[in-house]
Amino acid sequence: MRAMAKAARAAARGLARAPAEAKAKALIAAAVALRHGAEAILEANARDLAAAVAESNAFLDRLRLDEARVEAMAKAIEDVAAFPDPIGAVLARWTRPNGLVIERVRVPLGVVGIIYESRPNVTADAGAICLKAGNAAILRAGSESFHSSTAIAACLAAGLAAAGLPAASIQLVPTRDRAAIGYLLAMGEDIDAIVPRGGRGLIERVRREARMPIIAHLEGVNHTYLHANADPAKARAIVLDAKMRRPGVCGATETLLVDRGAAPALLPAILGDLAAAGCELRGDEGTRALDARVRPASDADWDTEYLDAILAVKLVAGIDEALAHIARHGSGHTEAIVTEDKAAAERFLREVDAAIVMTNASTQFADGGEFGFGAEIGISTSRLPPRGPVGANELTSYKYAVRGSGQVRG
Amino acid sequence: MRAMAKAARAAARGLARAPAEAKAKALIAAAVALRHGAEAILEANARDLAAAVAESNAFLDRLRLDEARVEAMAKAIEDVAAFPDPIGAVLARWTRPNGLVIERVRVPLGVVGIIYESRPNVTADAGAICLKAGNAAILRAGSESFHSSTAIAACLAAGLAAAGLPAASIQLVPTRDRAAIGYLLAMGEDIDAIVPRGGRGLIERVRREARMPIIAHLEGVNHTYLHANADPAKARAIVLDAKMRRPGVCGATETLLVDRGAAPALLPAILGDLAAAGCELRGDEGTRALDARVRPASDADWDTEYLDAILAVKLVAGIDEALAHIARHGSGHTEAIVTEDKAAAERFLREVDAAIVMTNASTQFADGGEFGFGAEIGISTSRLPPRGPVGANELTSYKYAVRGSGQVRG
Repeated sequence: MRAMAKAARAAARGLARAPAEAKAKALIAAAVALRHGAEAILEANARDLAAAVAESNAFLDRLRLDEARVEAMAKAIEDVAAFPDPIGAVLARWTRPNGLVIERVRVPLGVVGIIYESRPNVTADAGAICLKAGNAAILRAGSESFHSSTAIAACLAAGLAAAGLPAASIQLVPTRDRAAIGYLLAMGEDIDAIVPRGGRGLIERVRREARMPIIAHLEGVNHTYLHANADPAKARAIVLDAKMRRPGVCGATETLLVDRGAAPALLPAILGDLAAAGCELRGDEGTRALDARVRPASDADWDTEYLDAILAVKLVAGIDEALAHIARHGSGHTEAIVTEDKAAAERFLREVDAAIVMTNASTQFADGGEFGFGAEIGISTSRLPPRGPVGANELTSYKYAVRGSGQVRG
Repeated sequence: MRAMAKAARAAARGLARAPAEAKAKALIAAAVALRHGAEAILEANARDLAAAVAESNAFLDRLRLDEARVEAMAKAIEDVAAFPDPIGAVLARWTRPNGLVIERVRVPLGVVGIIYESRPNVTADAGAICLKAGNAAILRAGSESFHSSTAIAACLAAGLAAAGLPAASIQLVPTRDRAAIGYLLAMGEDIDAIVPRGGRGLIERVRREARMPIIAHLEGVNHTYLHANADPAKARAIVLDAKMRRPGVCGATETLLVDRGAAPALLPAILGDLAAAGCELRGDEGTRALDARVRPASDADWDTEYLDAILAVKLVAGIDEALAHIARHGSGHTEAIVTEDKAAAERFLREVDAAIVMTNASTQFADGGEFGFGAEIGISTSRLPPRGPVGANELTSYKYAVRGSGQVRG
């Protein structure tokens, strides 16, 4: 691990100075290599799947690759390649009264460690985004996806070689031994930031052991709040999308809050849509009075990230109660209000403390691609930056370039 | 400590929404209270000094307050009050093809813990900067400055009361028990960022134990590099200022690198200035051949932050060797080149990996006030933001405000 970290640091020095064209060339060549190597990748994936037969269907689905998924990986890398290069951009410039010209210039973070679980496509996504941002990546794939990730990493290596960039720019930890994670987390001097992608157990281990800054997504207990002045048609379309478009993504709505006075007019059609789409409904008494299919919600429901076709529904007296509920139960990921009342919308945007706060839109827009970030490595729920979707721009830092003409402080 | 953290979280919610005027009013009232309370502060300081008689003169100087220092604290708080309010600023705004309008809006970090050592003025500075940024502050003063800090904190509390802001916006840990630091560092859920200000021992303890992001200044092993094309007069003025203006500040130059070919023309006058100002000189053989007063430097000198009137001097073959020396020995704080060669200057700015990189200016400009940040809580040497001088703007985060008109992802 030490040798990997040392090689990563040297590669990061080279990458920080690499021209934008070289990084784009490496990414495009990696996409070509992925397409050419599809057969080998699927063979490796079959070995991983064979070893994981005892796992759940959801687990196997995350692990499984097919030709479409390999093509999607290649396409995603091409998208990252086409994105404007973040490095060297002047983020701010000002001149001091003494004539010093100060610039804040975007630079890479350095060496980024990424620890992830079963999805092998993270190898391609994370490697590509790190490279775009000029960072050397140390990837620790889930042990269950080890063969798949190794085959994908070989394609990234081919891309780096084609562009003449250091081979150690993207390294996969070459062992399934879980002790490697402990070593990785202890290398506070060698790794500038760590990105855990996985379940609560992984995130908590990283929080406990990491000796470097963490860019982490904890969970998305997201709310959609239907204000009394919500447009019924918008509310109906937004709630169905926010919950059921893909119930398993972190931006999915988990709890629906509805102003009590408007609930009889708004809720029946919405609950009907959800039930018809196969969504299990759990609600408070007021909700259950409106629809007999709604099962009673327990206290735990208000704090649960289902990541599944289940929705908790609660009536509130108004925006004050909605804001208080979100402050208490929200996880700081994505929160939305549906209303035609501009003052209520602006108050919600201002007062809700979450990475993403929305008006009149589906919480499933919580996504780096939808934000225009090209691709994302995840959505950070920490308060410190980077917060929200983390794309190549967000995996950077800055330094100050100060140009003088002989100034002294005296 | 739990109760303090809980009160801080509630205060932070209020502060996040507090109007700019209320925060400024609290700061101005705190400055008034400091001036009115000067006598009580100096009495408290006398108790601290009496208990610290066994300490070094440098330590006692850091601890000692007098009327001028109390006035300087009050003035610094007024400067923070006059600075533009950071919160609510729209840092970026763009519209997506689907009509979603996305804004990145500046928000407070939340609850910030500050652990510091002997200088009691940090109580005033840190409290004021945190308040300006809308953060609740938990201040853990050095046990030696406990009475002084308690008296200063009372003035900040008076300011908060005058503006009707929550009393828990600025809390001083009410005990000298060092175990409190351990409790503070363990509260990863309750404190959003921790700022250690002190010696290496404190920083290392914080790195080891903190369960939250750290905004830390490690050390400033800063270099000034005199390139072959340096203007001799600028070089002479810059080096004297960079080392001797205040040798004990973190932006002071600790090592001087000089192009070998230009050294006979540049160095004698510079070394003469430094020796006349009382600076001890340590150098490699080439330097010693130019001035008999220069003592031999050991390997350890190239890695030492003297914070004192001592300078290490080394001749280099050219910019390549200078860059390599800085990459190996620099601490990522502040690095400067003196040259009239634009290409060399730009290469230095681009390739040196440090929070602040300068051309033709004294490294002692590494200071939030000199950058126009109003005041600073320190200079961060970490690679992740905030990097460099940390003022009120840098003690903030952001959230995304997304305004829709019924969009769904579908």
